[in-house]
Amino acid sequence: MRILYHLPLSPFSRKVRLALAEKRIPFDLRVERVWERREEFLAVNPACTVPVLQEANGLSIVDSYAICEYLDEAYPDGPLLGRTLAERAEVRRLVAWFDGKFNAEVTRNLLYEKQMKRLLGRGNPDAAAIRAGYANLKPHLDYIGWLAETRAWLAGHALSLADLAAAAHLSALDYLGEIDWSQSDAAKDWYARIKSRPGFRSLLGDRVSGLTPPDHYADLDF
Amino acid sequence: MRILYHLPLSPFSRKVRLALAEKRIPFDLRVERVWERREEFLAVNPACTVPVLQEANGLSIVDSYAICEYLDEAYPDGPLLGRTLAERAEVRRLVAWFDGKFNAEVTRNLLYEKQMKRLLGRGNPDAAAIRAGYANLKPHLDYIGWLAETRAWLAGHALSLADLAAAAHLSALDYLGEIDWSQSDAAKDWYARIKSRPGFRSLLGDRVSGLTPPDHYADLDF
Repeated sequence: MRILYHLPLSPFSRKVRLALAEKRIPFDLRVERVWERREEFLAVNPACTVPVLQEANGLSIVDSYAICEYLDEAYPDGPLLGRTLAERAEVRRLVAWFDGKFNAEVTRNLLYEKQMKRLLGRGNPDAAAIRAGYANLKPHLDYIGWLAETRAWLAGHALSLADLAAAAHLSALDYLGEIDWSQSDAAKDWYARIKSRPGFRSLLGDRVSGLTPPDHYADLDF
Repeated sequence: MRILYHLPLSPFSRKVRLALAEKRIPFDLRVERVWERREEFLAVNPACTVPVLQEANGLSIVDSYAICEYLDEAYPDGPLLGRTLAERAEVRRLVAWFDGKFNAEVTRNLLYEKQMKRLLGRGNPDAAAIRAGYANLKPHLDYIGWLAETRAWLAGHALSLADLAAAAHLSALDYLGEIDWSQSDAAKDWYARIKSRPGFRSLLGDRVSGLTPPDHYADLDF
């Protein structure tokens, strides 16, 4: 069976789970505690990061960028990267925006500094980083709202990996109660739409021991 | 004419320059001082980063990941991402390794902390970051050397974007005199091979005002 090695709050793992579900590709989930540096896992991925996708034929695909590109090549039904060169450039620009810029400016500051450091016993959160994370979140929500208001989906007329990447980061932060949805009605409306997509139910059902999400987290009419 | 907006020491710009040259696609270079936040450039790339590739037909492709994937789709001759699904997964794993892990652990600490902060007047370099950069460089050179010894090129039997990504980071750091090539003979041998590829001459000819590279920088027999 196909196995996705993941961590429940990893936005990069969440993006791949959503992509697999959109393509209706069945898979089993396996939690990989990367901080334990398991030897068999290191042999497959020396960077020791999740997600890693292991196909039933033994092929392992490492890194969410490699996995998502692989999925659209190996399973072209329901393309997630767009059809024309221009569409594909726009989808990938936005994937880089969310996995690069949003991740560095928001996710890392709020998810890593505020939660993971404590869980992993890596010292106290950096208050300046957390302040920066909150300050950066508002313009990012505005940008998502602006894209959602001017297009059917974030990258254009069709749902794409750009929506899944954005939703992956936001859903991980929403689990931690970090998103104030009243800041952008347009972003909230878009998130309500993507929340009802296949694959989201599995994400919303995950629980991390010691961390309870806010009441609205799994609610489709939040 | 095709224009690549770039910065001379940006490893991500260098990777795209090498990819364009490998495919023998002609282009003009234009330096984009991203810190000036030029309005016309922001309209194309709100993230205000280089590289951005502008095609003669007006299509702009933003972000080095989007550009490199685009180049292999729009100009399939001389594929840089591999042919089979397994080859492509390995190339992309290594591109993510160099542009993600190597960049965070080495390039950012030595290029940004040591040089860019000063040039941009953003305060003093963080000594701990610079120490970490040097400490991380050695195992990374060892990994490059190990790959180069066990395969013809870093990702397998053919030269690929993995080689170009690695060479882009190393060449930017080599300009600053940060690479001690005596640390890994195998990495040095691989770098000597890639240095003689098309496109490297243009990189090695670049000069950044106020920064003189070491004598061996442009030497093919360093």
